[in-house]
Amino acid sequence: MTFSAADVDAMRRALSLAKRGIYTTEPNPRVGCVLVRDDQIVGEGWHQRAGEAHAEVNALQQAGEAAQGATAYVSLEPCSHQGRTGPCCVALAEAGVKRVVAAVQDPNPAVAGKGLAYLAEQGVDVAHGLLAEEAEALNRGFFSRMRRGRPWLTVKLAASLDGRTAMASGESRWISGAASRDDVHRRRAWSSVVMSGSGTVLADNPRLDARLAEPCRQPRRVILDSTLQTPPDARLFESEAPLLLVCGEQASEARAAALEQAGAEIWRLSGQRPDLRQVLEALAQSHEVNEVMLEAGPKLAGVALSAGLVDEICLYLAPHLMGDAARGLFHLPGLAAMEDRVPLEIVDVRRLGEDIRLLLRPGAGGAGE
Amino acid sequence: MTFSAADVDAMRRALSLAKRGIYTTEPNPRVGCVLVRDDQIVGEGWHQRAGEAHAEVNALQQAGEAAQGATAYVSLEPCSHQGRTGPCCVALAEAGVKRVVAAVQDPNPAVAGKGLAYLAEQGVDVAHGLLAEEAEALNRGFFSRMRRGRPWLTVKLAASLDGRTAMASGESRWISGAASRDDVHRRRAWSSVVMSGSGTVLADNPRLDARLAEPCRQPRRVILDSTLQTPPDARLFESEAPLLLVCGEQASEARAAALEQAGAEIWRLSGQRPDLRQVLEALAQSHEVNEVMLEAGPKLAGVALSAGLVDEICLYLAPHLMGDAARGLFHLPGLAAMEDRVPLEIVDVRRLGEDIRLLLRPGAGGAGE
Repeated sequence: MTFSAADVDAMRRALSLAKRGIYTTEPNPRVGCVLVRDDQIVGEGWHQRAGEAHAEVNALQQAGEAAQGATAYVSLEPCSHQGRTGPCCVALAEAGVKRVVAAVQDPNPAVAGKGLAYLAEQGVDVAHGLLAEEAEALNRGFFSRMRRGRPWLTVKLAASLDGRTAMASGESRWISGAASRDDVHRRRAWSSVVMSGSGTVLADNPRLDARLAEPCRQPRRVILDSTLQTPPDARLFESEAPLLLVCGEQASEARAAALEQAGAEIWRLSGQRPDLRQVLEALAQSHEVNEVMLEAGPKLAGVALSAGLVDEICLYLAPHLMGDAARGLFHLPGLAAMEDRVPLEIVDVRRLGEDIRLLLRPGAGGAGE
Repeated sequence: MTFSAADVDAMRRALSLAKRGIYTTEPNPRVGCVLVRDDQIVGEGWHQRAGEAHAEVNALQQAGEAAQGATAYVSLEPCSHQGRTGPCCVALAEAGVKRVVAAVQDPNPAVAGKGLAYLAEQGVDVAHGLLAEEAEALNRGFFSRMRRGRPWLTVKLAASLDGRTAMASGESRWISGAASRDDVHRRRAWSSVVMSGSGTVLADNPRLDARLAEPCRQPRRVILDSTLQTPPDARLFESEAPLLLVCGEQASEARAAALEQAGAEIWRLSGQRPDLRQVLEALAQSHEVNEVMLEAGPKLAGVALSAGLVDEICLYLAPHLMGDAARGLFHLPGLAAMEDRVPLEIVDVRRLGEDIRLLLRPGAGGAGE
């Protein structure tokens, strides 16, 4: 399949519209649509909020009669199922659109290709695969949940330049600067879940919600807390963002009741200690969780990495030295020789205020999949 | 003093010529000179090697008669003393140069300004302060020795992204990639001294010389070795670069003799353990050492930092995790609270092959001067 420069421009515009939903579409994907007729944009739309109209419907509404004979550029294959709104492929065909270009097929294996197939049956020219990588990256959590049955997991860490996350005493506020902390709040806002462990709750008493200047969806906070050590007066309860505590079977019933009373949802899993993979799969299944930001100490970060569950590491390095008595980034027991090192790929490096932000992916042969 | 755009261009050219001597002028500064008449460059020169002609003399030679009435741009104030070559200020005046612009005055307080004063007395227009910062940076070691009586000290470190320099076993080869190691060899080649401790010699058995594709001066290797533990068959002795071992008063005479026999110079200082500041000052005094690259373990790096002797940290971060049992970057005892952290300024960040290189300076309120 070859695409023209005009096709690329239109799809870029569709992706840029899709991004407007980054803080609001959860658990749905972010999707944008552009209708072009005679080299003119005649309609634009994007999906704004779950339960509301899809991108295609918004674009068709704007275009009205002008949709007749237009090409539709959609950053995700138009849906073929009757969801909360009608199937978009039917709406496009009925509006007289003559060509549909999708960046990428629906990641749900059960429906992938069906929307485009329906359109082709109606005599519409169809194509897909234009800027597919960008389109998948924008909805990496949604794609992960659909394809792997678990969310995309980003580990967020802030460290000094010598790789330390807390003084030996546990003191850690604030390692990174204001610009990095703003970046963290934006990342929390586009995540379905901010996850941490009870150790971090007890040490730092964080709220773990998204505090942005602009309005945003709040992520669900999920705390792995085997024995329900989280106090019912923790600052977690000061936020209106949903809170889920995941405990093991031995956690006290009285504590669970007190925490539920304070506003938390409690999940009691079998075994002493919740298994991270099991928790992630359950979150995808029951709460449609696309993307998780894990903000935890070296133990939980190490567990996630060793289990091959980490998709990305977002590491803020602050211009300080904390010395070699301070706490490290990843607890990785059993790592003894250089050949055991965990390889990473550096995806992005940028300066953020006084800090540096690194985006890393588990490298070939590493802990990733 | 104001300068024209043409002045700036000419001085940039002089600095670029000066840089050609970066691997060869030691212990002299790198200096470039451009002669301009009627908006044309009529002569260029740079100092190539200690004992050979200064930049001004080379430029005058190229210009010949055309130097008459020209402006001379020199990246360092022309010398007024009879050194290994004649005073450049006399040569410039005799050639009929009508204006001399120096990037910066001679840093030696005893002669600063004398070259320009002589020229002014001869009726030459003089100015200085054009691109002074760049000119000082190029000769930061020479300026440090002249002004502070000790060399510029860069700590070189290679670590994993979690700030680890060796596995718990001591194994550390190779943390960084080929591009970073090439960069280290270039930095060794422009340093007067590569310094390390006997612990690093025993653990890694390094040569610590400069191995570049192009011809280069070899740095002197200086090993802080209180009790002369360096074995006479260490790889240090395989290189033709000079080797100096600095020991304390209790080091064995027999060991000293064996090491001298193997080719090392031995400095025996009073006390159990050589004091780093004393060693640096002695190196500046006796061996005209401008710039030192310290390639050592966390203890010696921590000592240098705590003593306020570090001017720059060159940190190579490799895309790996080594885990929190591995060895850290800086041993900084007594660092207990967040407010005790050592602040750094990030001067430069760049990707070098698969690695990232950070250049850091001790920050305000930190360990620097």
